Amino acid sequence: MLVLAVLARRKKVDDNLRGISGLLSPVNFLDHTQHKGLAVAVYGVLFCEIFGLGITPNPLPFVKDSPHREYWMMLALIYYPALYYPLLACGTLHSPVGYVLGSLLSWSHFGVLVWQKVDCPKTPEIYKYYALFTSLPHIACLAFLSFQYPLLLFKGLKGNDDKNTSEDLRSSYYRDYVKKILKKKKPSKSSSASSKPGCFARISDAIKSYIYTPEDAFRFPLKLAISVVVAFISLYQMAVLLISCVVPTLQIVRAGVDEDIAFLLAGFNIILSEDRQEVVRIVVYYMWCVEVCYISAMTLSCLVNLAMMMRSMVLHRDNLRGLYRGDIYNVYNCQRSIRPSRPALVCWMGFTSYQAAMVCLSMAIQTLVFFICLLFAVFLVIMPILHGQNLMLFHIIANMWPFWLMLFLSVIAQHIAAKFVFIRKVSGARDLHNRGSLFLMTYLLFPVNVLIGVLLGIWRTVITALFNIIHLGRMDLSLLNRNVEAFDPCYRCYAHYLKIEVSQSHPVMKAFCGMLLQSYGQDAGPRTRDAEEGIQLVQQEKKQNKVSSARRARGHWQLLYTLVNNPSLVGSRKHFQRQTSESFVNGTLNRSGKDGSKKEAESAGAN
Amino acid sequence: MLVLAVLARRKKVDDNLRGISGLLSPVNFLDHTQHKGLAVAVYGVLFCEIFGLGITPNPLPFVKDSPHREYWMMLALIYYPALYYPLLACGTLHSPVGYVLGSLLSWSHFGVLVWQKVDCPKTPEIYKYYALFTSLPHIACLAFLSFQYPLLLFKGLKGNDDKNTSEDLRSSYYRDYVKKILKKKKPSKSSSASSKPGCFARISDAIKSYIYTPEDAFRFPLKLAISVVVAFISLYQMAVLLISCVVPTLQIVRAGVDEDIAFLLAGFNIILSEDRQEVVRIVVYYMWCVEVCYISAMTLSCLVNLAMMMRSMVLHRDNLRGLYRGDIYNVYNCQRSIRPSRPALVCWMGFTSYQAAMVCLSMAIQTLVFFICLLFAVFLVIMPILHGQNLMLFHIIANMWPFWLMLFLSVIAQHIAAKFVFIRKVSGARDLHNRGSLFLMTYLLFPVNVLIGVLLGIWRTVITALFNIIHLGRMDLSLLNRNVEAFDPCYRCYAHYLKIEVSQSHPVMKAFCGMLLQSYGQDAGPRTRDAEEGIQLVQQEKKQNKVSSARRARGHWQLLYTLVNNPSLVGSRKHFQRQTSESFVNGTLNRSGKDGSKKEAESAGAN
Repeated sequence: MLVLAVLARRKKVDDNLRGISGLLSPVNFLDHTQHKGLAVAVYGVLFCEIFGLGITPNPLPFVKDSPHREYWMMLALIYYPALYYPLLACGTLHSPVGYVLGSLLSWSHFGVLVWQKVDCPKTPEIYKYYALFTSLPHIACLAFLSFQYPLLLFKGLKGNDDKNTSEDLRSSYYRDYVKKILKKKKPSKSSSASSKPGCFARISDAIKSYIYTPEDAFRFPLKLAISVVVAFISLYQMAVLLISCVVPTLQIVRAGVDEDIAFLLAGFNIILSEDRQEVVRIVVYYMWCVEVCYISAMTLSCLVNLAMMMRSMVLHRDNLRGLYRGDIYNVYNCQRSIRPSRPALVCWMGFTSYQAAMVCLSMAIQTLVFFICLLFAVFLVIMPILHGQNLMLFHIIANMWPFWLMLFLSVIAQHIAAKFVFIRKVSGARDLHNRGSLFLMTYLLFPVNVLIGVLLGIWRTVITALFNIIHLGRMDLSLLNRNVEAFDPCYRCYAHYLKIEVSQSHPVMKAFCGMLLQSYGQDAGPRTRDAEEGIQLVQQEKKQNKVSSARRARGHWQLLYTLVNNPSLVGSRKHFQRQTSESFVNGTLNRSGKDGSKKEAESAGAN
Repeated sequence: MLVLAVLARRKKVDDNLRGISGLLSPVNFLDHTQHKGLAVAVYGVLFCEIFGLGITPNPLPFVKDSPHREYWMMLALIYYPALYYPLLACGTLHSPVGYVLGSLLSWSHFGVLVWQKVDCPKTPEIYKYYALFTSLPHIACLAFLSFQYPLLLFKGLKGNDDKNTSEDLRSSYYRDYVKKILKKKKPSKSSSASSKPGCFARISDAIKSYIYTPEDAFRFPLKLAISVVVAFISLYQMAVLLISCVVPTLQIVRAGVDEDIAFLLAGFNIILSEDRQEVVRIVVYYMWCVEVCYISAMTLSCLVNLAMMMRSMVLHRDNLRGLYRGDIYNVYNCQRSIRPSRPALVCWMGFTSYQAAMVCLSMAIQTLVFFICLLFAVFLVIMPILHGQNLMLFHIIANMWPFWLMLFLSVIAQHIAAKFVFIRKVSGARDLHNRGSLFLMTYLLFPVNVLIGVLLGIWRTVITALFNIIHLGRMDLSLLNRNVEAFDPCYRCYAHYLKIEVSQSHPVMKAFCGMLLQSYGQDAGPRTRDAEEGIQLVQQEKKQNKVSSARRARGHWQLLYTLVNNPSLVGSRKHFQRQTSESFVNGTLNRSGKDGSKKEAESAGAN
């Protein structure tokens, strides 16, 4: 770090903004274009370390079997970020020395970890190979870093072509984004052909909406990219933990079952068989079933969470694009101002961590619930069918057949009567018919409908619980009703996160700042190129340049045109009164987001 | 019924539409103005009967101890509606003979029931007084009927003033409703004064929104009124059932605890005290606590359900009014056509029953969940505090104090830093400041935020579960996320119910039909006055009257004016092509519902 600091001081002479302050904030979270690999890998390494903290007896490497484990653990929460900080900082200077240091650091971290794991692969924690499995993503992230730093060094020595990709406002990404918006979209086939899409088409659409396909004209914000990778690592870690906590124990118990179990069961008046060997066989078989159920539940939970993560990525992109367009109502379901605020900033800071924690928690809850459901299914449905005994559930259902038949018939009767007797089509418009009979039927079927209502209520309970458990790990949707959405803490956090992200790194705004800087650079020679100073630059520029009155008049007209076309910009003006803007925004509230991209383009053009 | 049928035939001569067909549909569910008492009371009686069916060993009064109980029970589901049908039918004829028959019938039902309960108040089911308690609403409904029929008879003999209230289109209700809409609202104080309502005002508003206050210019549809009363009765019945299933048993067990319990507990290695009398005292005390928890849970569940019913009524009124105004988007959160369809009609028929079933189910689930929560609270929190022992939970929390302190401090630090360091106010607009430090802080606090995320996740789980359990009995809101609302079967049913109700009994439409009928009556003398035939009458009238070309031209102009102001009416026109209307509706999609009442009034005026 000292070498880096000295280096930064020396570099400061050349480049008057990047320096020690740049070294102290190595990640620019609000830059969409920088090479994301380094930050993502360091976050991955950090998450692997802190995930192990809860289980390991020695949270810090240099403290062994101390009595105050909890204090050391809290210290470790600060120690590990500091330990891996230089790995991140080496990449910020964009100098060969930084890359050399980064390579050395990552090689040493990688070497130490691999040597440690090769030296003693077995540990006494939970399961002998648990520590080995849990360090695999850790090793992968460090390997990526050890590969990436030399690559950056090589590129840096070869030429300056990394500057184009790493510098924020110089990147062509924002210009490409704006160009894509300005391009007129061809009228897509789907809108003309699909007046009523078929059932198959709808199902395939639903499946497609769960598959994330990267698009060239859109890159994820760095913070979202980190969140997704960290969530993936937490999924893996949680799966390894869940498996190694339970399955080895079950296997040991299963191997240890002997004839004593028959006496034990007899003590509870459970006699599975007269033959003791038979009893052992049955108990072992049942335990094997439980094990299979548990592993299936865990796998199911993993798959569900993977699907949810994919879906989240699709929705993240849609939401960000929608907000860039100005579709605030569609994303939030209410009108909100997209400006940084205290709670929004706190939520933005914690977003990645919350996402990782939610994935861990949802994995645990899902595995438990799926396990219980699978146990019921196996021991009440599948086993009785396979062995043809203990068919209690089927007997109960079979005994109730007249009841089911009655409910089924009454539902069918209501549907048929509604379709053919009570609804009449007169010249295209449907209307009620035979009202007397409708009222009579409603009265007579009241008692039967109460029973149908009970089934409906059970179905409601089941579907609500299932939906909420499956979507527990997702922060981009609220688990509550639409009117109280904001009471869901995770959704609230996501909504706030989007606010900061959109207000601070709108691609059109960035493209505009880039163009301004470029034109300024052509006028006044090379100057600072730092990303965040774009807007302040504009203000300086305004003050410095004396403009002629004609130019000022033209500027006023352009401003007026922009404001008329983009009333939401009024809120960002200097001499702006709060009430006026609110009435303005309410008045021009329009829901259809179709002309959003046009507006956005106009805004860029008018600017 | 025979007497009534003969009477109806005789009356048919006078009144050529009401007759036996009228007798066969005694409830006009789509009439907002009729006297609701009779229908509501009969539905209440019917619900009491079928609620008892599941518990009583003899579902039908004339079958004792039959082997095929389930078949008799299914028969009872048809028998009881038929049994109480005459009670309803006597009111439809609006003739003194009908009222006399109704009085006799309701008196006899009432007399038999009361005599039965007085003769043997104790029954062997569940709890000795269960049958008595459960029949109280039954008796109340029958008493209401026995009082109401003589009252109607008295009014009928005195004069024809009941005609004004019972006839549908003649009622002044619809005209009053339209008058109220046409009246200009005074600008309310709240909109001008409350730019930012205080915390206290917001809380009082929230409480007020849970209290239903009847308004003169709005009456509930009959079906909703029945639903609310039946839901209330089901609440009472469920409460009686839950109490009498558990509490008497608990009391018997508590009374039967003797010194043997000490040996029993010692068998499980639980030694509460050396003295056996002491053990008995402790066990009795614990059982008393469990009993108190159970009764509190049941009471809490009752109160929650009552509050939810009140809130539902407020929302029902708001939703109906909104839909009358045309605010489809606000109610459904998407654009829908308000026209009768097969699923809508089936849902409309079952709505009352489903509501009652949902209340029963939610009562049961709520009592169970609240009971478990209260047990935990009492035995882990309150009892240890009172007796100063077994303070496990407190010891655990106290041991973790450095952990809680760290989390608390880091949250506070983030908030303070966000407010004073990272957000800067420049001329009214807030913007980010010190980005470097913000990114550094985000990186360093990543591990701590993961722990905060776990707490947040637990809070999310708890609040979601609690919200869904509390709102389980309400059909007017979906328990699912806003994008998949329609997958909640109960909310889907409610949405469909509203469709039918609004499309078939829009007050402005009814007022218009009433005015048409009145003007027709003035032109062509007295004719049929039946409610449902209003629109057909208009069509007949059109064909019969030859209009002059000037009048026709004026009619065309008025039609055009109406359609321009109310584009949604285009869909109801005869020569109407589907595609045109869809594009039309989408094009004129407006979200703000403020001009809805104006539009509605215009629609009535233009017609």
